[in-house]
Amino acid sequence: MAPDTRTSTDFEPSPAVVVGDTADAYFHRAAAVLRAENLNPTVVMEFAATRGGILCGIREVHSLLDRVLPETEREVWALEDGVSVATGEVVVRIKARYSTFNVYETAIAGTLSQSTSWATAARECVDAAEGIPVVCLAARYAHPAVVGHLEYSAIIGGCTTCSTAHGARMAGVQPWVSLPRGLILVMGETVRAAQAYDKHMAQEFPRVIPVDTLGDEVEEALNVSRSLKERLRAVRLDPPQNRGGTTPDLVKELRARLDLAGFSYVEIVVTGGLTPERIREFVEAAAPVNTFGVGKFIASSVPSGFSGDIHEVDGKPVAKRGRIPGVTQSRRLTRIL
Amino acid sequence: MAPDTRTSTDFEPSPAVVVGDTADAYFHRAAAVLRAENLNPTVVMEFAATRGGILCGIREVHSLLDRVLPETEREVWALEDGVSVATGEVVVRIKARYSTFNVYETAIAGTLSQSTSWATAARECVDAAEGIPVVCLAARYAHPAVVGHLEYSAIIGGCTTCSTAHGARMAGVQPWVSLPRGLILVMGETVRAAQAYDKHMAQEFPRVIPVDTLGDEVEEALNVSRSLKERLRAVRLDPPQNRGGTTPDLVKELRARLDLAGFSYVEIVVTGGLTPERIREFVEAAAPVNTFGVGKFIASSVPSGFSGDIHEVDGKPVAKRGRIPGVTQSRRLTRIL
Amino acid sequence: MAPDTRTSTDFEPSPAVVVGDTADAYFHRAAAVLRAENLNPTVVMEFAATRGGILCGIREVHSLLDRVLPETEREVWALEDGVSVATGEVVVRIKARYSTFNVYETAIAGTLSQSTSWATAARECVDAAEGIPVVCLAARYAHPAVVGHLEYSAIIGGCTTCSTAHGARMAGVQPWVSLPRGLILVMGETVRAAQAYDKHMAQEFPRVIPVDTLGDEVEEALNVSRSLKERLRAVRLDPPQNRGGTTPDLVKELRARLDLAGFSYVEIVVTGGLTPERIREFVEAAAPVNTFGVGKFIASSVPSGFSGDIHEVDGKPVAKRGRIPGVTQSRRLTRIL
Amino acid sequence: MAPDTRTSTDFEPSPAVVVGDTADAYFHRAAAVLRAENLNPTVVMEFAATRGGILCGIREVHSLLDRVLPETEREVWALEDGVSVATGEVVVRIKARYSTFNVYETAIAGTLSQSTSWATAARECVDAAEGIPVVCLAARYAHPAVVGHLEYSAIIGGCTTCSTAHGARMAGVQPWVSLPRGLILVMGETVRAAQAYDKHMAQEFPRVIPVDTLGDEVEEALNVSRSLKERLRAVRLDPPQNRGGTTPDLVKELRARLDLAGFSYVEIVVTGGLTPERIREFVEAAAPVNTFGVGKFIASSVPSGFSGDIHEVDGKPVAKRGRIPGVTQSRRLTRIL
Amino acid sequence: MAPDTRTSTDFEPSPAVVVGDTADAYFHRAAAVLRAENLNPTVVMEFAATRGGILCGIREVHSLLDRVLPETEREVWALEDGVSVATGEVVVRIKARYSTFNVYETAIAGTLSQSTSWATAARECVDAAEGIPVVCLAARYAHPAVVGHLEYSAIIGGCTTCSTAHGARMAGVQPWVSLPRGLILVMGETVRAAQAYDKHMAQEFPRVIPVDTLGDEVEEALNVSRSLKERLRAVRLDPPQNRGGTTPDLVKELRARLDLAGFSYVEIVVTGGLTPERIREFVEAAAPVNTFGVGKFIASSVPSGFSGDIHEVDGKPVAKRGRIPGVTQSRRLTRIL
Amino acid sequence: MAPDTRTSTDFEPSPAVVVGDTADAYFHRAAAVLRAENLNPTVVMEFAATRGGILCGIREVHSLLDRVLPETEREVWALEDGVSVATGEVVVRIKARYSTFNVYETAIAGTLSQSTSWATAARECVDAAEGIPVVCLAARYAHPAVVGHLEYSAIIGGCTTCSTAHGARMAGVQPWVSLPRGLILVMGETVRAAQAYDKHMAQEFPRVIPVDTLGDEVEEALNVSRSLKERLRAVRLDPPQNRGGTTPDLVKELRARLDLAGFSYVEIVVTGGLTPERIREFVEAAAPVNTFGVGKFIASSVPSGFSGDIHEVDGKPVAKRGRIPGVTQSRRLTRIL
Repeated sequence: MAPDTRTSTDFEPSPAVVVGDTADAYFHRAAAVLRAENLNPTVVMEFAATRGGILCGIREVHSLLDRVLPETEREVWALEDGVSVATGEVVVRIKARYSTFNVYETAIAGTLSQSTSWATAARECVDAAEGIPVVCLAARYAHPAVVGHLEYSAIIGGCTTCSTAHGARMAGVQPWVSLPRGLILVMGETVRAAQAYDKHMAQEFPRVIPVDTLGDEVEEALNVSRSLKERLRAVRLDPPQNRGGTTPDLVKELRARLDLAGFSYVEIVVTGGLTPERIREFVEAAAPVNTFGVGKFIASSVPSGFSGDIHEVDGKPVAKRGRIPGVTQSRRLTRIL
Repeated sequence: MAPDTRTSTDFEPSPAVVVGDTADAYFHRAAAVLRAENLNPTVVMEFAATRGGILCGIREVHSLLDRVLPETEREVWALEDGVSVATGEVVVRIKARYSTFNVYETAIAGTLSQSTSWATAARECVDAAEGIPVVCLAARYAHPAVVGHLEYSAIIGGCTTCSTAHGARMAGVQPWVSLPRGLILVMGETVRAAQAYDKHMAQEFPRVIPVDTLGDEVEEALNVSRSLKERLRAVRLDPPQNRGGTTPDLVKELRARLDLAGFSYVEIVVTGGLTPERIREFVEAAAPVNTFGVGKFIASSVPSGFSGDIHEVDGKPVAKRGRIPGVTQSRRLTRIL
Repeated sequence: MAPDTRTSTDFEPSPAVVVGDTADAYFHRAAAVLRAENLNPTVVMEFAATRGGILCGIREVHSLLDRVLPETEREVWALEDGVSVATGEVVVRIKARYSTFNVYETAIAGTLSQSTSWATAARECVDAAEGIPVVCLAARYAHPAVVGHLEYSAIIGGCTTCSTAHGARMAGVQPWVSLPRGLILVMGETVRAAQAYDKHMAQEFPRVIPVDTLGDEVEEALNVSRSLKERLRAVRLDPPQNRGGTTPDLVKELRARLDLAGFSYVEIVVTGGLTPERIREFVEAAAPVNTFGVGKFIASSVPSGFSGDIHEVDGKPVAKRGRIPGVTQSRRLTRIL
Repeated sequence: MAPDTRTSTDFEPSPAVVVGDTADAYFHRAAAVLRAENLNPTVVMEFAATRGGILCGIREVHSLLDRVLPETEREVWALEDGVSVATGEVVVRIKARYSTFNVYETAIAGTLSQSTSWATAARECVDAAEGIPVVCLAARYAHPAVVGHLEYSAIIGGCTTCSTAHGARMAGVQPWVSLPRGLILVMGETVRAAQAYDKHMAQEFPRVIPVDTLGDEVEEALNVSRSLKERLRAVRLDPPQNRGGTTPDLVKELRARLDLAGFSYVEIVVTGGLTPERIREFVEAAAPVNTFGVGKFIASSVPSGFSGDIHEVDGKPVAKRGRIPGVTQSRRLTRIL
Repeated sequence: MAPDTRTSTDFEPSPAVVVGDTADAYFHRAAAVLRAENLNPTVVMEFAATRGGILCGIREVHSLLDRVLPETEREVWALEDGVSVATGEVVVRIKARYSTFNVYETAIAGTLSQSTSWATAARECVDAAEGIPVVCLAARYAHPAVVGHLEYSAIIGGCTTCSTAHGARMAGVQPWVSLPRGLILVMGETVRAAQAYDKHMAQEFPRVIPVDTLGDEVEEALNVSRSLKERLRAVRLDPPQNRGGTTPDLVKELRARLDLAGFSYVEIVVTGGLTPERIREFVEAAAPVNTFGVGKFIASSVPSGFSGDIHEVDGKPVAKRGRIPGVTQSRRLTRIL
Repeated sequence: MAPDTRTSTDFEPSPAVVVGDTADAYFHRAAAVLRAENLNPTVVMEFAATRGGILCGIREVHSLLDRVLPETEREVWALEDGVSVATGEVVVRIKARYSTFNVYETAIAGTLSQSTSWATAARECVDAAEGIPVVCLAARYAHPAVVGHLEYSAIIGGCTTCSTAHGARMAGVQPWVSLPRGLILVMGETVRAAQAYDKHMAQEFPRVIPVDTLGDEVEEALNVSRSLKERLRAVRLDPPQNRGGTTPDLVKELRARLDLAGFSYVEIVVTGGLTPERIREFVEAAAPVNTFGVGKFIASSVPSGFSGDIHEVDGKPVAKRGRIPGVTQSRRLTRIL
């Protein structure tokens, strides 16, 4: 599940992170006090999941720590992106001089929190789809500054691909593309837009055409099929809410009418408001879907929450109230730095 | 509510956004087809809220469009950050050559979606607090690439400040700071850490000390109060879940014991798992809280969702099925470009 | 509310009812025993509603009793069709020789039970519609032997008309008619069927055309409007469930697109799965509906239940356990026979 | 389960149905248009269940179609009364000139809808009773025009008999009879009425006496048992609601007291407000009930709903939106005309 | 509401309480330690309600403390039986040498807990009855060792009387009495038992006869009324569950039948499974009940819970965690010792 | 489970019970009538459980009946304390002259009702604890007059011991004791109080110290452990609600910190608001609890309710309505008198 770990600047921390601009400001104060007091103990800090899921964000954390921790005095253990973790499980352990990493606690926790929640949400969809491919179409629900990280996480969670160049590059896949509705509106007719799209696009790209923009889904699908013939790879269903959205029965009717007209090779892509529950409805009804596209559900996942706790100071077990002092036993952690 | 609109690089789009790396890839395909067909109509696109809330993200969108749309052929109308919007309300209207902005539809929708949901969540907390200040402590639940934008949005929604330098700078406020727990664990005692913190920090910064790290909240609060005396501004309550979290009764007891010991000037800050419901419990019980700190609730808000629809092509009303053709009437939109 | 009481054979009891074939058979046994015992007391029997609603069925009961009770020894009091009755209220009181009417208890109770439940269900729809006309389209959910009675009751409950000749005749109204979908399928195109319909039908009948049989509702509505022009009275919306049924937003979009194209005189009829709750959604959303058509909801109403209890035998108050002996006081009953 | 198919006028359509008075009026308009256009294609129409259940009404539909379709140009396939059908299953397929049957679509759908819902409701009771006989006592909740059809359907669903002569004749059974309460009230005492009933009734009819009209159920049952001795077949329990209705414990006590007094051959019939749930309570409590009588539950069943859709016109597959074109595959349909 | 405070041995503590046998044993250990350490401070202990209600038990607590605290060194403040108290309100404050009362903390808390819960439950019934008298018939649900205290508390809560001599004596009222069912079963007939009861009982006692033991309630009530005539004060309804218990409709029917027969002076007493909700049903239905009898509901009340906390030791404010140190302000407490 | 049946005055009825002061007063009236009528039949009365549970109270009932029934004319059968009984099961059968026991029906029913409900509640806790000992700490929620009986019943239900001398003596066990909080408050420090307690108490008693009175639970536990060393048997957790009560995680942390400090022999006792549900949470989370203490839950149990019905009078089967006449078959009853 985990991608190869080749270097990529996409996983590099931004300058704002490196200089500590995105850290909770009090960590800078703590650093100042420790300097003034001439204290710089070696500290063991552990990051643990506050709820179970599919871990993600480790690759970014690795890249950050590799850059900021001095090579001679650092030990970092971690699990890897894509493994399943339990509530309370330790996923990263850092042993280093406290002043070398204390300002990065916020960034590490935040990176793990969102990445893990995105990967976990994607996994829920993939599990529900029982083998039918799921693509991540969440870009329009996320701030562009994190779109790539969200898509990478979704692919770690099991999605086959995503919709932007940024996320696709981070995950090492090709982006998923269909004809956009805007082109249909600008050209005035679905078939005309499909023909132009077909004419000007390299042969190796699959033609996927939305068929719910101007007329009835089935009518449009038949018209587009008749026009593009074998060059048509798939039609995409995402009808507006006031036309009922997509239902298993609609997919079945469309499949039947396409087959009746001789277009059994045309695939059906279903998108629009999908959740694991809704995907399960399609699967249980045996609706002949070829690909699901999920967006808002992944972008809406609640941050998983990762605590960062000091468990040892200069070799002595400590912990705040509510935590157990000393290094936590774990057979799964591997030293990565 | 809205901050001044002075220029700031913090609201500038990143290069990845400008080059279209974070756009749904199919917009690039559409642009290629239109070029090949020699089509470049003037299009009116409207972004409308799919659910009500406190609008945010306009300032970033303004900055992006100002940079990418040619000055001679553009009209942009918008509402402003911080206004309340209804379900279905149009918040941005763009009239320009389609090829000049079609690849930015994803970025605009995503920016508005998350910023608005963050501002709306913050507003719910602020409303629940009925005048007691609320600070945003969400940084550790958000990817560092969006921490600043989240905090700016929360302040637009009514929070008085936030915890990182980045968000504080974007919103033009001072960050909120308390003594971090890590310092207490490293120094081994709450009072010792508080004294060091007090000694080395400039006089103008308020001393806020957490009192739940190693011992009973009330005991620690009294010890710290006796040590720092009038220099202590506030104690912070955020006890671990297995010690019950913070309750209205605990705040009342702490207030009573502080008053009994002569520390009626010491304020009480409550943080940890707060939501509008939990804030309301404190307010209804008349618990003497001086400041609330909210984190995960704001970071967990579900993206609001903004549709981007074409309503006019070269002066002709159009719309996809499910939308009403033609420019939408609005008395609230102002021309910003 | 109540129609004029002109005579009509539609309200006459069938021969099976008159000879007692539809009576609970034990009433015949009771009659035989009383004859053998030479007993034939004068009895007061009262029919009371077991739950509140809009009373209906009285006209049929009147017709039956007028035919079977000897004129010299009968007293019948009743409320009239269309009045609102409370739980437990007496609606019919008969004083006559027991042998002259005991076999009709079943028919009287059954007639009142179903007619009242149909009228009550219709009234709930009419109340929800707040002034927008409601027509009864329940014929295909009811056995043809009661279709007319059901429709008469629905009109007593407030519907403006119904769909069969039988019900319309009973209630003294014109039946409601639109072009049937079968004609469209037989002729292959909606516009072609509409043109034929328009061409061959007398001018005085309004043209109402369904626009959801073969293509998108809005497209078809525009096509039909362009074809029939001012002769088109209304379009009918009843899209299949796998195309989303009818929603307030769809009605609004259709209205807007019709107006935009200059067809503001074309009305919109909404049918398909309507209930008082769903009608209320349209009304609350201010969706511009001109007529609602309700079917299954009225046909599905649970029989109201009317008890028939003996309260006096030869002038002596009696009652079975659970009832209060003696004639029940009522200021609303009027003597009708 | 299905009765023999001997001819009976009870299944004949009424004149109002044959002339089309109970048809949705628009079917007459469609017929007129087709005549004017000189169109009379051969059409395949299929009636399918919109929800599963025990099919009923076929015998009436068969009788209607046999009368109206010309023998030389008709093909009718159908399932038979009493079979279990699934949601969406085709139960009747007609292939004939459209003008010969289009006005009967309403009557066919309505007949199947109500008959199937009655049979299905009866079956639910019969299943719950786990072998204890269930009789249909619904006549007083149904309009007399459909009482016989309701009872026939209930017997198709599994009831052993019913209470009116009409229904019994349709189903080929003897009606179920007990002494009616009216006789008790007229004669003033339960025992006196039971004696008169016993004296004047032919020996072959079983004596079933209600024992809850004037006094305590158990007292009355013992008094009646002592009076009629071995000639008593059963006592009937249906106490008024303000005396608690019938409960499993009451049946057990009555059984014990009858046995104690030597009347172990007297059976117990339970009626009054029974539903599958309440029947199940008796069965699960092992209450010694000999017969259940069910009324309102069967009369209250929601019409099942049967769609009538054109699937072929002159040999060409067609369908309205939401249906799949062409004749539906079915291995269960048998040609009946 | 509170009875006169005349002395009565019924409120005296039992020897087991006085010697500390019913105290949590650890209080004896504490006393031994303090003696050994030669410590015997003056302590202020406060008992506070953990939930609101009608206070009861004070009279017993007063009696206990008066007996055990040395007169020269004691101060006791309290509210009085029958007042309404809020959650958290202090109801008893003791200032005395700790060794003189520490072993009685358990007895004081327990006495207040149960007495208050009984009084509160009774009050809920009395409030629901809106002026109709409520008598306490809970004796058969309570251990005989507390029956009298339960009944006294119920009368403090608003009941007019109770069923045992013990409770009646404690509250200074006459016990409520009806003819017991056992007498009816032993004598074999309700009327015969009623006549014997009437014959042998002093004239001043009201005759209340249960009418649901052997036959139908209404029949028996009429028989008893005819037999005892004006000497009959009331009939009591408490039919078994398998005969439906008592309902508002049954009371109305009984009232009507009694009135019809000339017994309008006979009152109706309703007992059996009553709760505030069920009483409210009778009141809202305007059922003509003359007296309600409540048993199990009062006996089932959950102990209110009274904390006993030390707030001052030798004049110094103290408190365990979770309580506020120092004497609690209260304007309602009165010094009683 | 049942203790030995050695004689003990603790199970003797009080004089008020023997003279009938706690009886429903009408039983005295019935006795007077029977005397006056010279009737004194031999009666069989059966007490049956109205709901299932763990039977208790038999030993007291035995003691009462042994004292009041004349030896020559009595037969008493019963089950024994501690057995599980089903709804409706007979637990005591008395055959004797009616006048010798009729006034004790109330006391017998009340004793069984409360004792059985206490034992049943205790059993639910014991079952939930899956082998971990449960002690009954309910004394402060019960009136002192029944504290001993409650505790005896709880031990019959499976608790290992209780907190008062009275209950412990009745059940033949040693009472459970910890250091009381009052001593800590009087002495001002937990450790000081623990030392005094340790110093003055006989060696054979286990030292159990509460660690939540003045400071954090874990801090106090470590302090006490360091002070008492091997003489410390257990620490008791019952933190105030505004400190979160006790949770599985708190127990785990405490265990870990005690073990880390070398105090693995110190046990953990959990008390405070426990119910079967909460106990199950600890057990399911595998929290290392050594003993549970349950109070309010047992004291709050709803009285089970025991009916006392006459089933035979002078050898003749009788019963009130709703019961089955004659002696009930039972293979479990044993003759005890």
